[in-house]
Amino acid sequence: MSSSGPPPAPSAAAAAAEELAADLSAATLSKKQQKKDARKAEKAEKAAQRQQQQQPAEADDPFASNYGDVPVEEIQSKTISGRSWTKIGDLEDCAAGRSVLIRGSTQAIRPVSKKMAFVVLRQSMSTVQCVLVASADAGVSTQMVRFATALSKESIVDVEGVVSLPKEPLKATTQQVEIQVRKIYCINRAIPTLPINLEDAARSEAEFEKAEQAGEKLVRVGQDTRLNYRAIDLRTPANQAIFRIQCQVENKFREFLLSKDFVGIHTPKLISGSSEGGAAVFKLLYNGQPACLAQSPQLYKQMAICGGYERVFEVGPVFRAENSNTHRHLCEFVGLDAEMEIKEHYFEVCDIIDGLFVSIFKHLTENCEKELETINRQYPFEPLKYLEKTLKLTYEEGIQMLKEAGTEIEPMGDLNTEAEKKLGRLVKEKYGTDFFILYRYPLAVRPFYTMPCYDNPAYTNSFDVFIRGEEIISGAQRIHTPELLAKRATECGIDVSTISAYIESFSYGAPPHGGFGVGLERVVMLFCALNNIRKTSMFPRDPQRLVP
Amino acid sequence: MSSSGPPPAPSAAAAAAEELAADLSAATLSKKQQKKDARKAEKAEKAAQRQQQQQPAEADDPFASNYGDVPVEEIQSKTISGRSWTKIGDLEDCAAGRSVLIRGSTQAIRPVSKKMAFVVLRQSMSTVQCVLVASADAGVSTQMVRFATALSKESIVDVEGVVSLPKEPLKATTQQVEIQVRKIYCINRAIPTLPINLEDAARSEAEFEKAEQAGEKLVRVGQDTRLNYRAIDLRTPANQAIFRIQCQVENKFREFLLSKDFVGIHTPKLISGSSEGGAAVFKLLYNGQPACLAQSPQLYKQMAICGGYERVFEVGPVFRAENSNTHRHLCEFVGLDAEMEIKEHYFEVCDIIDGLFVSIFKHLTENCEKELETINRQYPFEPLKYLEKTLKLTYEEGIQMLKEAGTEIEPMGDLNTEAEKKLGRLVKEKYGTDFFILYRYPLAVRPFYTMPCYDNPAYTNSFDVFIRGEEIISGAQRIHTPELLAKRATECGIDVSTISAYIESFSYGAPPHGGFGVGLERVVMLFCALNNIRKTSMFPRDPQRLVP
Repeated sequence: MSSSGPPPAPSAAAAAAEELAADLSAATLSKKQQKKDARKAEKAEKAAQRQQQQQPAEADDPFASNYGDVPVEEIQSKTISGRSWTKIGDLEDCAAGRSVLIRGSTQAIRPVSKKMAFVVLRQSMSTVQCVLVASADAGVSTQMVRFATALSKESIVDVEGVVSLPKEPLKATTQQVEIQVRKIYCINRAIPTLPINLEDAARSEAEFEKAEQAGEKLVRVGQDTRLNYRAIDLRTPANQAIFRIQCQVENKFREFLLSKDFVGIHTPKLISGSSEGGAAVFKLLYNGQPACLAQSPQLYKQMAICGGYERVFEVGPVFRAENSNTHRHLCEFVGLDAEMEIKEHYFEVCDIIDGLFVSIFKHLTENCEKELETINRQYPFEPLKYLEKTLKLTYEEGIQMLKEAGTEIEPMGDLNTEAEKKLGRLVKEKYGTDFFILYRYPLAVRPFYTMPCYDNPAYTNSFDVFIRGEEIISGAQRIHTPELLAKRATECGIDVSTISAYIESFSYGAPPHGGFGVGLERVVMLFCALNNIRKTSMFPRDPQRLVP
Repeated sequence: MSSSGPPPAPSAAAAAAEELAADLSAATLSKKQQKKDARKAEKAEKAAQRQQQQQPAEADDPFASNYGDVPVEEIQSKTISGRSWTKIGDLEDCAAGRSVLIRGSTQAIRPVSKKMAFVVLRQSMSTVQCVLVASADAGVSTQMVRFATALSKESIVDVEGVVSLPKEPLKATTQQVEIQVRKIYCINRAIPTLPINLEDAARSEAEFEKAEQAGEKLVRVGQDTRLNYRAIDLRTPANQAIFRIQCQVENKFREFLLSKDFVGIHTPKLISGSSEGGAAVFKLLYNGQPACLAQSPQLYKQMAICGGYERVFEVGPVFRAENSNTHRHLCEFVGLDAEMEIKEHYFEVCDIIDGLFVSIFKHLTENCEKELETINRQYPFEPLKYLEKTLKLTYEEGIQMLKEAGTEIEPMGDLNTEAEKKLGRLVKEKYGTDFFILYRYPLAVRPFYTMPCYDNPAYTNSFDVFIRGEEIISGAQRIHTPELLAKRATECGIDVSTISAYIESFSYGAPPHGGFGVGLERVVMLFCALNNIRKTSMFPRDPQRLVP
């Protein structure tokens, strides 16, 4: 009865409305912004109404039935016509002269004369130019040309027409064919003045510079404005490409791990927890009990391993209530997590990561050319360099490289962001790769459940993985015996009684194991060398942003 | 630096420990249970230590190096031996006489004499019988037999041995071969008395009845006890099968939709919200702002459609703070959601569901035979009956069928659980299917954003989908024009100003669209005719349960 999944309660209508009201208030911007937007929208709607009233399909037009606004009643699942629809992306395959029916968004409308106009139609990453020329043969009147030129940008329209080859090669569209329009109907009008202009939102830095040199001032759409109007911003070619790339990364992650006998699982995000949890957790009440949102599926994926699942992975949200206002932190992100039994050595985990990421990179390079080119047009980047067999360096070797380059690092401390960046550059110079594993981290900088090294307990069987000088993966062998786990927890100042159930679960027969976690948004950001993680999260959450 | 994904904060060690402490406290049971468990564990550990002390690999045993406990130092990633490991599931393919190395859990240990013992080793859903016979030729001493028989159940052991064909066919193991043990090492001991016994947890109802008839009393493991010790309970064959089936349902869901040009997306679970949200939302503070957990990705998947993504799906957690203590409700479940542009009719959405679910059912039946048989052994069920082309009935037809069978339903009201069950039986009798779509629901029982029918606004372009008389999917055409949306919201008593941003987003150029939502746990529960949704959630959350 509800919008998705199990129904909430018997009083369906009331409950559904209430529930939706909650979900929907997510879209609510600040009150000030809201009022401003409301005024703007009202004004725009009135303008649209005026425009529509000014242009009725004139009674004296013999071709009046070939164009017009389709009333909403017609779109309420009235008919199943069986008509066949063509995708803009498939148009290249159509022979010139073929009739097609296309639904798309009016990306650009260019009146040429009373008798002629161009309408550029868009579907996701593809566009096609549609040509209207008034002619009795074609059933196109001057009134119809006027109707088309008066459409607002970003409206949804249905076009029937004939595929033709343009005389001159087309710019500004992704197709080498155009459509000679025979009929054009508007399905849903956009308001005449949108809060952001798609053209502005799609420009590259180079275009801005070129315009500036020419003394021209182009409108920039800031990151916040983009996110406020994400439903429009998502339509830019780069954004259409970014989230398709993200989907491909996740697909390949799953596909590779499934082929290696991993099982995909789901673990709870609502977990028991109290104030001891520290500042970094989101706290809430769960039926009166203190609870919090999971900061990682760590415990649960380990329990699945103890539960006999041998190799598991999870794709799911991870919550961090940190006040980190950086280009690379989010309060909610998509975690790609894996955990596996190991026979002897945590390099077995590293080998999985090696195979997994090399296959992801290859897949993107080989199968997502169009998406990568599209991102490159707005945000130019150098292709990621990686080796067939991923480079592994010890933490000590990394420190040594930095030292030789003049950066002193406390040997038992951690690398800061700056040092990581520098190490990334040094490794790229020396080994020719943007992607490498740094392993054997000091005990002091890893969580208590990390397995110490057998030969030197000041180090651990752990690793981080870097892309372009930024950490994207953390992983390690975990402690699988209750005695050592309790000892390490105590050494880290943790009250063992608060985690007794966790520790005990390793006394029920636990195999040696290890695993890792990756942030999906970071993988996409760093593969494409984007400068902000908000570009790779569809609806990002940071300390300042909870909407839309 | 952290266990998974981006690191929390610069002070890595402290932060990581703190963070983990929060995650780990999820495992904390009630204080009473905790203390009880602690005492039990302590006692058991002491017993294990005594046992170990009693059985040192005796100095006068020439084969002492062929068995024993492996100290944890040896498992701290000390060596990469390059040895090859055999999976129990692959043993059938091994020729008799071949040497193998296997790591597994000691599911059963059966002493026969001082000179002979059996150890049944398990890996996920496969088991194999290992035979120890003291003999100088084999390098097996009576001390080694004693070491093996003194192992606790569920311990992790490495066995080296030779594949052989048993004289008599084996019961109790899934293999038709056995292993003649040459070496046996314990990697990690389980405590001697586990809180639940795997044998008890794996019994079918039929076994209990049979025992009862024989005057024997078998131990039952209740659902709550199972969940309290889920890391053990997950090892039963049925549980190993259930979550593999769950993974396959998700895989097929993704695979089918990807093949139909859907893009997988991720939408935020933390959303802006205030107390208006009603009782069914989990509320929390987000950096001082009121926030709540998403009850569905409804708004966001619609925004993705408005954002030009044409067809999207999402797999992610859904949160419902309802006090529903039923066999089919959870407070957190995995939602499978989809949303798509429609050209003319919401039956385009129904067609996707038809193809999707028929392909899921076929995939499970054809490729998950072993898992389904395994579930069937503990929880017998009739295979799901479905048609190649899914049956669609109108809501009115459904009501009429119920009426004819003596159940009166208020025609503009909703079906209760009982009526749904009955309708399921009637449909199965008449049409021979457990799976069907009921469409054209009354307006009064659907959310305000549901598109009314063009010919009668008291009904909607909506549907529910049923498996074995229980609703699993809800879907509909959505309203795509701001005017109608505002009108419907007002009619439903919603203050339009609170959802203005949502309504406005349809004025930026929104295509006609529809979609649906499914609960992953329900699909698995109903496909396998299981009687409780807690059986198909790895770590379920209901009003009473937040741990582990």
